[in-house]
Amino acid sequence: MDFNLLYQKKLEYINEGLISLLNHRNSHQLVLDAMKYSIQAGGKRLRPILFLSAFELVSNPNDNLFQKEIDAIRPMACALEMIHTYSLIHDDLPAMDNDDYRRGKPTNHKVFGEAIAILAGDGLLNLAYEVMLEYLPSNTNKLTGYLKAMSVIANSAGISGMISGQSADIQNQDGDNEESDLTYIHSHKTEALITGALKAGVIVRTEDHEALKAISSFGKRLGLAFQITDDILDLKGNLNQLGKSPGSDIKKGKLTYPAIYGLERSKKMASQYIDEGVSILQSFGKKADFLIKLAISILNRNN
Amino acid sequence: MDFNLLYQKKLEYINEGLISLLNHRNSHQLVLDAMKYSIQAGGKRLRPILFLSAFELVSNPNDNLFQKEIDAIRPMACALEMIHTYSLIHDDLPAMDNDDYRRGKPTNHKVFGEAIAILAGDGLLNLAYEVMLEYLPSNTNKLTGYLKAMSVIANSAGISGMISGQSADIQNQDGDNEESDLTYIHSHKTEALITGALKAGVIVRTEDHEALKAISSFGKRLGLAFQITDDILDLKGNLNQLGKSPGSDIKKGKLTYPAIYGLERSKKMASQYIDEGVSILQSFGKKADFLIKLAISILNRNN
Repeated sequence: MDFNLLYQKKLEYINEGLISLLNHRNSHQLVLDAMKYSIQAGGKRLRPILFLSAFELVSNPNDNLFQKEIDAIRPMACALEMIHTYSLIHDDLPAMDNDDYRRGKPTNHKVFGEAIAILAGDGLLNLAYEVMLEYLPSNTNKLTGYLKAMSVIANSAGISGMISGQSADIQNQDGDNEESDLTYIHSHKTEALITGALKAGVIVRTEDHEALKAISSFGKRLGLAFQITDDILDLKGNLNQLGKSPGSDIKKGKLTYPAIYGLERSKKMASQYIDEGVSILQSFGKKADFLIKLAISILNRNN
Repeated sequence: MDFNLLYQKKLEYINEGLISLLNHRNSHQLVLDAMKYSIQAGGKRLRPILFLSAFELVSNPNDNLFQKEIDAIRPMACALEMIHTYSLIHDDLPAMDNDDYRRGKPTNHKVFGEAIAILAGDGLLNLAYEVMLEYLPSNTNKLTGYLKAMSVIANSAGISGMISGQSADIQNQDGDNEESDLTYIHSHKTEALITGALKAGVIVRTEDHEALKAISSFGKRLGLAFQITDDILDLKGNLNQLGKSPGSDIKKGKLTYPAIYGLERSKKMASQYIDEGVSILQSFGKKADFLIKLAISILNRNN
């Protein structure tokens, strides 16, 4: 199947999962509406798709039970999107990045006010764990991998990962721009959860050391390339394509790749990371086809 | 041992646990400092102590292994305090209750700024789950109860509990004050996590239906009495005792028990809830001594 069609199919599979997990929740309506608003505003569903694709790498997709296995971990894939979306809602707040648009729509606080936006973010982060706990496998062997995957996700989302990237980003705004700060911020803010999603997809199935090492190395490169293209899009993109206001990094005096290395060198760096990532994935053979195409598509993305 | 001494001993046991869980975390320093600031600002550690006391109700405290069992679930007790503290940090934000003092000290955002306060709250909520996942029991039988307790905690902290109370509270500010709204807000905002802590303390050990029913009924009454005395203290307390500015509920047009029922009737309601709660606990015999004294002490608290 064509890569774009296959990606779209996976994206819809995740969207279905998200909708069913958010529907019929026992909740105060206002905060639930705000959570649904941001979840349903669209998005690439990159982290859930990376998670499921990494799972495929270490599975046998021709097995009769494969679809059942995928269905069993879909809630975990959706939990990753809930965590990502909560981080966007909080990042967009006036006290943080103060952004008005996201995914082509007004940001959460623009629609629901700051207080509810804060709670909607809290609600999504907490719901990610509720959902993962609701769908624990009953089989003891599978449970072990599932709990390890939960830990990987929790650690990559928390202060040893994503949250620390955001903290460093805030501390560095309008400060001295140092290469080492840029590396710290980007490797935590974006790469941590991307690598976490990939690692979780492997470890939920197997503790194979080589596979975990390979997927982590791939994740690091994919995550950095993703952030570099993000920085470039912020410079060159337009509101329609991006779904958020371009140029906002510069306005905020943020550390970005183009600001430090220039545009051309940044593009080369992203391209090199993807080349390295692709060659790491070769060891998985034909099963890596989708992830390889996905990695390459990152370089040409326009949102 | 005297109740106050025993409470103090338990409180110090929790504080030790919290400090050791927060130390040596791999984190960006600024957000970790902010998290430690609020965790170390003091507090009654009510939820962790309720959790451990409920565990005692269904255990044999004379067993040689009892202290080891308590030590094994201390991280879960501390996770409850992390969740409670995150909710205070976010509730105090300018966009929410806009409070300047908490536990006798400037609120988190007054010291670290709003952006870092938001992240510190996020970090503590996420860390609660990280910590619970770090200390999973290796014994399969114990694991089942432990995961059920995690679910109870997650559900009581999320949109089916605490977060929805806060959402309703915000929606109702300066609106029409209805009794049904007051009940909804208080049963979610405060009582949910208190009952959750108690239920988790039982279910981590046993699924005994009667014990769970009793502890839930007790929790509901304790939680409501706690919130009523909170409302009364907001009216009558002073900054020194309370550690936060009194009178702030009225200023914000908040729904409170005294505002709807008057002071005397509110006091009677709290007292009746505690009476009912105490009589529910009688079925546990002597093991309930501590929780009974704790429940009664709620009526006379001054912070």
